[in-house]
Amino acid sequence: MIYITRKEQFSAAHRMYREDWSDEENFNVFGKCSNPNWHGHNYVLHVTVKGDISEELGLFINLSTLKQIIKEKIIDKVDHKNLNIEVSFMRGKIATTENLAISIWNELKPAIEKERAVLHCVKIGETENNTIEYYG
Amino acid sequence: MIYITRKEQFSAAHRMYREDWSDEENFNVFGKCSNPNWHGHNYVLHVTVKGDISEELGLFINLSTLKQIIKEKIIDKVDHKNLNIEVSFMRGKIATTENLAISIWNELKPAIEKERAVLHCVKIGETENNTIEYYG
Amino acid sequence: MIYITRKEQFSAAHRMYREDWSDEENFNVFGKCSNPNWHGHNYVLHVTVKGDISEELGLFINLSTLKQIIKEKIIDKVDHKNLNIEVSFMRGKIATTENLAISIWNELKPAIEKERAVLHCVKIGETENNTIEYYG
Amino acid sequence: MIYITRKEQFSAAHRMYREDWSDEENFNVFGKCSNPNWHGHNYVLHVTVKGDISEELGLFINLSTLKQIIKEKIIDKVDHKNLNIEVSFMRGKIATTENLAISIWNELKPAIEKERAVLHCVKIGETENNTIEYYG
Amino acid sequence: MIYITRKEQFSAAHRMYREDWSDEENFNVFGKCSNPNWHGHNYVLHVTVKGDISEELGLFINLSTLKQIIKEKIIDKVDHKNLNIEVSFMRGKIATTENLAISIWNELKPAIEKERAVLHCVKIGETENNTIEYYG
Amino acid sequence: MIYITRKEQFSAAHRMYREDWSDEENFNVFGKCSNPNWHGHNYVLHVTVKGDISEELGLFINLSTLKQIIKEKIIDKVDHKNLNIEVSFMRGKIATTENLAISIWNELKPAIEKERAVLHCVKIGETENNTIEYYG
Repeated sequence: MIYITRKEQFSAAHRMYREDWSDEENFNVFGKCSNPNWHGHNYVLHVTVKGDISEELGLFINLSTLKQIIKEKIIDKVDHKNLNIEVSFMRGKIATTENLAISIWNELKPAIEKERAVLHCVKIGETENNTIEYYG
Repeated sequence: MIYITRKEQFSAAHRMYREDWSDEENFNVFGKCSNPNWHGHNYVLHVTVKGDISEELGLFINLSTLKQIIKEKIIDKVDHKNLNIEVSFMRGKIATTENLAISIWNELKPAIEKERAVLHCVKIGETENNTIEYYG
Repeated sequence: MIYITRKEQFSAAHRMYREDWSDEENFNVFGKCSNPNWHGHNYVLHVTVKGDISEELGLFINLSTLKQIIKEKIIDKVDHKNLNIEVSFMRGKIATTENLAISIWNELKPAIEKERAVLHCVKIGETENNTIEYYG
Repeated sequence: MIYITRKEQFSAAHRMYREDWSDEENFNVFGKCSNPNWHGHNYVLHVTVKGDISEELGLFINLSTLKQIIKEKIIDKVDHKNLNIEVSFMRGKIATTENLAISIWNELKPAIEKERAVLHCVKIGETENNTIEYYG
Repeated sequence: MIYITRKEQFSAAHRMYREDWSDEENFNVFGKCSNPNWHGHNYVLHVTVKGDISEELGLFINLSTLKQIIKEKIIDKVDHKNLNIEVSFMRGKIATTENLAISIWNELKPAIEKERAVLHCVKIGETENNTIEYYG
Repeated sequence: MIYITRKEQFSAAHRMYREDWSDEENFNVFGKCSNPNWHGHNYVLHVTVKGDISEELGLFINLSTLKQIIKEKIIDKVDHKNLNIEVSFMRGKIATTENLAISIWNELKPAIEKERAVLHCVKIGETENNTIEYYG
C-alpha cells in the first residue's frame, strides 16, 4: 500500500464564534480568533490518499486527477473567500480548523473513492505552528 | 556596518478595493483579492535595521528592544485584525501589501531612530510566493 | 477523533556522554556530539494531542491552553539552558534527543489529561535532518 | 519504542513511460512527466526506523550509522544520476516516485535489520507539493 | 520605490559540459554535474521587479500580470524539459545556473518594461543550498 | 556580474557575556543569552561571492571550491564546538552573532580572493527569526 500526499494552499478570512453568544462571551472562549471584523490565514492543506499501485503503471491514482479533485471540490470554493459566509460546506458550523478538516474530508471522500483510492488523512496548517489532522 | 533582521508573523483579513468603485470595477482591477466578504493571510514581516556595533557589547541594537518595538508599533495593531477597518495607520489607503509595507516603515522609523539604529528595509510576504520590499 | 499539533522552538546546549566513561570512550560512541565543551541546537518541538471535538465549540482543547501547558512544563525549563546541567527532568539521563522526547512526554502527559485530551506524539527535530518521535 | 527519521536529498533525472508504448500513449497517461528528453527533481528522502533505546546509551541506532547506510545503499547510486538508465534497483520498473519508494525500502531493509533496528517508513518528496510514503 | 518578488518553481533535466571536450575533461571541471545521462533539479525562480506605486491603485504592476509574464516567457518553456536540448534561449550556452539566470533576465526584461516596471533581480535556487542572483 | 550563495549549517554552544562583568550585570544587558551554563543554536550560514562568469565555462567560481573553502575555514572549526572557548577566530570577542559574522568574513576573504572572486556578504541565521548580515 502506497500513500500519496498532495499539498495545496488557500487564503481565506474567518471568525471563530457562536452566533447565539455575545461578542464578549465569544472572546472569553475563542480569544482574538473571535474578532467580529474577521481575520484570515494562508491555510496549507495536505490530502493523503492510499492504494495499491498497478504493475502496469507504477502508480494507483494519477497525481493530476488528485490535484483536479482537490481544486474543484475545495480550493475553488475556499480560496479568497470568507469561510463563515461563503463556503456552503461550512454553513451552520463554527469555523474552527477542526470543523474545516472534517468538512473537507466529507467533501473529498466520494470523489476519491470514485477513483478507486482511499482517503487517508486531511491535514490543515492554519499557521506555521498550528496543525489539525483528521483520519475519518 | 551590520544588518540585523527580525522576522515576525501576523494573521489578518483584508480586501483590495476602492470605495468609489463598484464591486465589478474592483474585480476587474484587483481580481479575487477584491472579494467583498474579505479574505486573509498569514503575513510574514521582516524588519531590517543597520548600525555600527559597539566594541563594548558586540552589537548595536538589542534584539529584545527591536522585537518589542515591532510588537508594540505593528503586531499588536494588525494581528487577528481587519487591515481595512481596524488598523489606524492604513486608514484611507488601499489595503495592498505595497501600501502596508510603506505604512509599517513610517510607523517603525521614529522608534528605530530613537535607539540610534537605522531602518533599512521592511519586507512583507503575503503568501509564500509573493513578497514586497520597501527601503524608504 | 481530531489530532492537533502545536509547534514550539527552543535553543539549548547539550553534550552526549556517560560520566563514567573517558572523553575518548565517549567520542568513540557519541562522536563530535560528546564534545566536553558542549554544543547546542535550535530544537523544534511538535506536540500532538487527540480528542473528540464538542459540537458546541467545534474544538476539544483550546490551542491557547495547549500552548500554555507546553510553555510552563517544557519551554520555560529548557530554552536557553544546558540540558545536561539545568533541566530537572533530564537529570541522570544521557542527553540524547531520544531521552529528551521520552522525558518531555512524561512531563506533558498529566497536564494534557487534566484537559481531557490524549497526548499522542512528541516529535523533536534536533537539526533539519534528524528527527525523533515518541508515542508513549 | 522510538522513531528516528533521517532526511537526505538527491538530484536526479527521470522519465515516466512504458517502453512498449508510443510517446503519444505515454503522454496521455503520464502527461509532461513522460517527456522523452527527461526532466528532473531535487528528491527529498526521509527514512524512518524504529527500535527500543538501550538504557546504557539513550539511543538504539547511531545516527551516523543510519546516515552511512542511506549514503551507501541509496544516495551514492541515485544522486546526479538518471533513474531510468543508471540505477540498478530501478531497472525494469517504471520510474514513478511510488516505485522508487518501494525499491529504496527493499534496498535499505536488510542493512537496517543488521543494526537490529526496524525500517518503518520511506518517504520521498518529488516536489514541495507531492510526497509518497511506503510502510512495507 | 517598491520591490515585488514572485516565486515560481520548475523541474528540469540538465548537464553541465562542453561538447568539444571529452567526458573525462568535462568531469574534471564540472564533476558529477557533467553526468552524460543527465540529472535534474526542482529549480526555484524568484523574479524581482521595482517601480513607484500609483496612488490610485496602491500598486505598480499587477501580480497576475507579472505571474502571467513569467509563465509565458519562462515556466512554459523550461518546466519538465531538458535545459540543454529543448530550451531555445539556452541554445549554445553551457547549462549552468549562472547562464540560466542571465538568459531568463534577457527573456523577461522587454516584457517587464512593457508594463512600465523595472526588472531588478533574477534569483535561481538550484538546490536548497546553492543560489544564483543576477542584477543585469 | 553574478552572485552565488552557498548555504551551510553548524551547531554550536555559546554565551553572550563580558568576563569583567558579574553574572547579574551580564543578564541585565544580554538577558537569557548570558546563561552561565551556555546554550546553543543550529546556525545557518550563507556566504555570497560575486564575479564575472567566463564564457568558456559559464561560471566564475566552482561551487565545490567555494564549499571546500567554507568547510575548511569555518565549518570544521565551529561545528559541534563552543564558540567562546574553542574557536580561535572568536577569541577575545563577545560571542554575538554580529561578531561571528565579521570574524567569518575576515576568515573567508583571503581564500575567496585567491580564487579571483569577491566576497560579497556573510549572513548568519541564529534562529529562524533572527538574522545578521555583514558586507565588509
